[in-house]
Amino acid sequence: MTAAAPAFFRSRWVGPPEGVQELDSASLAPGFRAAAVSCGLKADGGLDVGLLACGSRVVRSALLLTRNAAAAAPVRVCREECDGEAIRGTVVTSGNANAATGERGRRDAIAVRDAAAAGLGLDPPAVAIAQTGTIGVPLPVDDVLAGIAQAVGELTADGGGAFSEAIMTTDRGPKRCTVSAGGVTLSAQAKGAGMIEPGFATMLCFVQTDAVVADAAGALREAVAGSFERITVDGQMSTNDTVLLQATGTAGVPLRDGLLDAVLLQLALEIVADGEGATRVGRIEVAEAATDAEAERVARAIANSPLVKTALHGRDPNWGRVAQAAGMALAGERIPQLDADAIDAAQLAGDDAEADLLVRLARGDAGTTVYFSDLSPEYVELNSEYTT
Amino acid sequence: MTAAAPAFFRSRWVGPPEGVQELDSASLAPGFRAAAVSCGLKADGGLDVGLLACGSRVVRSALLLTRNAAAAAPVRVCREECDGEAIRGTVVTSGNANAATGERGRRDAIAVRDAAAAGLGLDPPAVAIAQTGTIGVPLPVDDVLAGIAQAVGELTADGGGAFSEAIMTTDRGPKRCTVSAGGVTLSAQAKGAGMIEPGFATMLCFVQTDAVVADAAGALREAVAGSFERITVDGQMSTNDTVLLQATGTAGVPLRDGLLDAVLLQLALEIVADGEGATRVGRIEVAEAATDAEAERVARAIANSPLVKTALHGRDPNWGRVAQAAGMALAGERIPQLDADAIDAAQLAGDDAEADLLVRLARGDAGTTVYFSDLSPEYVELNSEYTT
Repeated sequence: MTAAAPAFFRSRWVGPPEGVQELDSASLAPGFRAAAVSCGLKADGGLDVGLLACGSRVVRSALLLTRNAAAAAPVRVCREECDGEAIRGTVVTSGNANAATGERGRRDAIAVRDAAAAGLGLDPPAVAIAQTGTIGVPLPVDDVLAGIAQAVGELTADGGGAFSEAIMTTDRGPKRCTVSAGGVTLSAQAKGAGMIEPGFATMLCFVQTDAVVADAAGALREAVAGSFERITVDGQMSTNDTVLLQATGTAGVPLRDGLLDAVLLQLALEIVADGEGATRVGRIEVAEAATDAEAERVARAIANSPLVKTALHGRDPNWGRVAQAAGMALAGERIPQLDADAIDAAQLAGDDAEADLLVRLARGDAGTTVYFSDLSPEYVELNSEYTT
Repeated sequence: MTAAAPAFFRSRWVGPPEGVQELDSASLAPGFRAAAVSCGLKADGGLDVGLLACGSRVVRSALLLTRNAAAAAPVRVCREECDGEAIRGTVVTSGNANAATGERGRRDAIAVRDAAAAGLGLDPPAVAIAQTGTIGVPLPVDDVLAGIAQAVGELTADGGGAFSEAIMTTDRGPKRCTVSAGGVTLSAQAKGAGMIEPGFATMLCFVQTDAVVADAAGALREAVAGSFERITVDGQMSTNDTVLLQATGTAGVPLRDGLLDAVLLQLALEIVADGEGATRVGRIEVAEAATDAEAERVARAIANSPLVKTALHGRDPNWGRVAQAAGMALAGERIPQLDADAIDAAQLAGDDAEADLLVRLARGDAGTTVYFSDLSPEYVELNSEYTT
């Protein structure tokens, strides 16, 4: 065996299908091109406009958007105007979320989307728009339009690297992969670090493949349910969450079973690991719940408890805090004692980057799992000083 | 006018009835005596066993207990064995919550309660027990029993000071008052700084008065609904919350309207202001909600959002984070845009110790108010290092 490069599939909780090869993560799946430029939305001059184009006239796509009632203008525009099953172009800006920006924000989002559509030679309903960054600040739309005009001329098949940087905000680094298996290629780019708790999508994520995906919406919904919907950083459902899957089918064969799920779960875990100020990732498994809804409620209460999150940070195997959070989620119910036998929180101690926690409720046989970051002083410092 | 001493009623949000006098806060309402000793539960050797006795054979009391399903042993014992309407004695320990301690914890709580009852010459059902501190650690019950034996001999009418110190854990200082109005006296002692979000009580609070209180349960429930049920530090419902009101009626007149409410609201605000690592208190008013439940959900989402709490800490008038949290609470609903006109978060900036926030949902005429602390790096440091 030769020494392997640091793998994309790093987490012990992710099991990719056999025979998956990891390719240069800047290269996109066949048929896709991307570009990124800087138009001045980010104070540091970083890349902030990304463009993604599908060259194939036939594409099956699926688009998932946040359920937040205060959804940003780009989400509202996608919801109302996109043909989610046939998205060929995507424009993303970072640094300004265009959220809580009223009617002007809506007009700005449409102008940006229309400019991308014109530049890519597509009908507007075939173009998705996603934006992320500061909330409540008007978008400097002319700067963005100039950026799009420039990006249109720079689309390349290995633009996934720049594109993944152009969608970052407080992320410590880009989150992306390109993998191949069974004759198909799949590339994906994600971002997210704060304001992370699944409504159903929880951040931005773009997935491209040349595989045949007959039911793109079903495949994406299932993969998201097992990945982005199972994570939390700060319990905050974002105004801008967007996940897009595009499949051209030109490879003539379907995706290998479990590949999309594994890619999205690894990307979701990268978002948790890159949670603002995060240093460790915990996985809480709730077992023996009475119902799925109860398991979910208990798991979320534990994963979002600042006391459990600081215990994860402080390496304190404090199962009492796990009991307290579970008891809060079950307030008013009569339950068997949650004692040291019912809760395994030993891995809170130790220096592993990934820690497993287990709570058995002894009420039935439903269960679930949620992944969460620790809470550090740096989270607070970042969010006291950074305006989202 | 002569210069006034620092008043108990400090908050601009509290309006005590006219003519209230503030007395020495160590002195208890007539007929009550208290004592506190150190038995070694606290590593620093601080007071950790408190005893409170009512000399009047006639007393009307009301006892409110946490709804947490993982309630601590003392709460379970009170729930199952106390005559909540006729409590004459109270024993409190701090440093060990006797929570998540199983059958042994229950036996220990009963032993402590029984020792207090014997020492005070009362039937066990007339004695309440409350405990606060580390969860999941067996109680060194022999030490506590020795402490009770000592405390029984030290009961005094001005023992409210020592008693209020003996119930503290991470509190920066004692929270207590003694006030008189209209011929009656009312004294109260509270504690709480972390694991604070009302199930219905949210910490420990003991209130004594010689007033006639015909419906103690109703009066207490109403006062708690407007005070301890309206605060949050970290969104964590405790396993040990207990509030006790005792009224002897020996003064022959009732409590002045609003006095109990004002005392409990000021104590509740002191708990928020003393929230772990807290430096400021915010008040979120949700107006124009469709229903009371919706107003409550939105207010809690905002008050518990780490992004809003860090904005309060960082003096960032970030109304976009308020919009995001409100939108999360209303996920899936169609609502009017939450923009700068609908949200007033200007007081997040500025150095006032108390900041008002307002959000108008334009959906109806229900509303509510929740008080919350800011989130600072110190909260995280404290909870990463301190084992609760």
